[in-house]
Amino acid sequence: MKEKPSVLITGAGGFTGHHACRYFLEKGWDVRAVVRKNRPQLSELGISICDLTDKHQVKVMIEEEQPDFVLHLAGLNSVASSWKNPITSIEANILSTLYLLEAIRIESHQTRIVVIGSALQYDPALSQLPEHPYSFSKTMQMQIAEIWAHLFGMNIIMAKPSNLIGPGPSNGVCSIIASKIVQMERKSVDRTLYLNDLSIQRDFLDVRDVVKAYEILLTCGEVGKTYEVGSGKSCSLQDVVQQVKTLTDVQFTVETKKAKGSHAEVAIKGQDMIALGWTPTISLRSSLNDTLEHFRKHIS
Amino acid sequence: MKEKPSVLITGAGGFTGHHACRYFLEKGWDVRAVVRKNRPQLSELGISICDLTDKHQVKVMIEEEQPDFVLHLAGLNSVASSWKNPITSIEANILSTLYLLEAIRIESHQTRIVVIGSALQYDPALSQLPEHPYSFSKTMQMQIAEIWAHLFGMNIIMAKPSNLIGPGPSNGVCSIIASKIVQMERKSVDRTLYLNDLSIQRDFLDVRDVVKAYEILLTCGEVGKTYEVGSGKSCSLQDVVQQVKTLTDVQFTVETKKAKGSHAEVAIKGQDMIALGWTPTISLRSSLNDTLEHFRKHIS
Repeated sequence: MKEKPSVLITGAGGFTGHHACRYFLEKGWDVRAVVRKNRPQLSELGISICDLTDKHQVKVMIEEEQPDFVLHLAGLNSVASSWKNPITSIEANILSTLYLLEAIRIESHQTRIVVIGSALQYDPALSQLPEHPYSFSKTMQMQIAEIWAHLFGMNIIMAKPSNLIGPGPSNGVCSIIASKIVQMERKSVDRTLYLNDLSIQRDFLDVRDVVKAYEILLTCGEVGKTYEVGSGKSCSLQDVVQQVKTLTDVQFTVETKKAKGSHAEVAIKGQDMIALGWTPTISLRSSLNDTLEHFRKHIS
Repeated sequence: MKEKPSVLITGAGGFTGHHACRYFLEKGWDVRAVVRKNRPQLSELGISICDLTDKHQVKVMIEEEQPDFVLHLAGLNSVASSWKNPITSIEANILSTLYLLEAIRIESHQTRIVVIGSALQYDPALSQLPEHPYSFSKTMQMQIAEIWAHLFGMNIIMAKPSNLIGPGPSNGVCSIIASKIVQMERKSVDRTLYLNDLSIQRDFLDVRDVVKAYEILLTCGEVGKTYEVGSGKSCSLQDVVQQVKTLTDVQFTVETKKAKGSHAEVAIKGQDMIALGWTPTISLRSSLNDTLEHFRKHIS
């Protein structure tokens, strides 16, 4: 390993990817951002333009880079899109992982890799079936990661994060709320927030906390193991709305509707991460405040 | 449905595919053989040249054919090749199935499809891990079939056959034995048969019996269900050798070696097929005799 550890971050143009690039740069790592098209706006970053569903491009990239670490964040995370085009979801989540792991197996076998699953996975060991193609694609992605560690003795660690929130462009419900609130602050728009059932419980975790967890897993995680990464606290959308009300001067009302498939309570067990010395440090309130501030800066 | 049922058979150039094409033609069905390159030598067959790992080719084929039934036999079934090139195995077994099912979902939703698994699958519901990439690829293929039936209400039935034997080009152990014996009959070659452990138990089933089972599943199988298809009898390689000795004038000796990963006893439960009125009719001895006769005709 070189003196300055090198990390290749796929999906670097995304919500977590952006924070991960910034975090590892600040830590003094040699960071290479893998993007399909959009270049992240961080000058010290090395950039690789690579379509991860093209096995030849992936092989060439890994052969050239030989990174010490890979944080594999790339993928498609929309349930709705997975219903419209299951093949695209599966190619983005499964094939990209297969091609990446195979390239590393052949070209850079010592590399330590963290592969990121989803709280929306299902559990085949419980004879469950998935609720949507997205769930299937993430479950199968994690199976590949586990099985490649098992069959080929590769240094693969799996992480299953809870609902990530925080500043930056995200499709998560807290970002949607914050963005709407900032629009209300700016313009005389309809001051109604349309949300799904407010009683829905979620384990919200700040994206900057999860990036620290990924660093710990890259450097210390047990190979072949899946780590659940969450705040350990369930919180309702009602709680989120209450917090947001204390962070804005806007008076708004909430209208709710029931949405299909969003009611499964997602429990995150964080013991394994706590055993590695990780605990989340950013409160829901801080995270929501930073999210609002992000949109205040970026919505004109 | 048309008066003459139409069936599209993938992997028609293979061992089972060859027998399936012949069987359904004899039954008076409209048979379309899907092959990548090699054309089967049956004049009444409709032929589609299609690379099933190319989603556009698959979509065009299904759009044109709109078959009543699809028997999906295509794939790569070599454990050794799957170690050498896991991606090729996974593309051949998983992507082909995904692209085929997606094309049928969009272009021909009423089609009834039988997808063929393998006795070498592992069981994720038992928290098992696969012994080789081939096992993984077949297990995942069957998961896709089950999940596409579940998520999209498609008419998909899964079959898990035991060890197929019978006349024709096959990589199975009985074919290898028969081919060697016929070589001994013809030439003054070394009269030693090199085999793995003779105590290995397998459920051998004639390929012509399995094709009848596939017809029953295509027409009467319960959607979303996996059927194990086997003779219900375990038989050792020692038994096979004894039978072969009564079917040839050649005197030969056997030398054995232990081979990695071949010892798992494969139990096939056939109750569900018996409930559908199917029973195998060809004995091991008949099957071995026909296999020897095949090679006597085809080895010069």
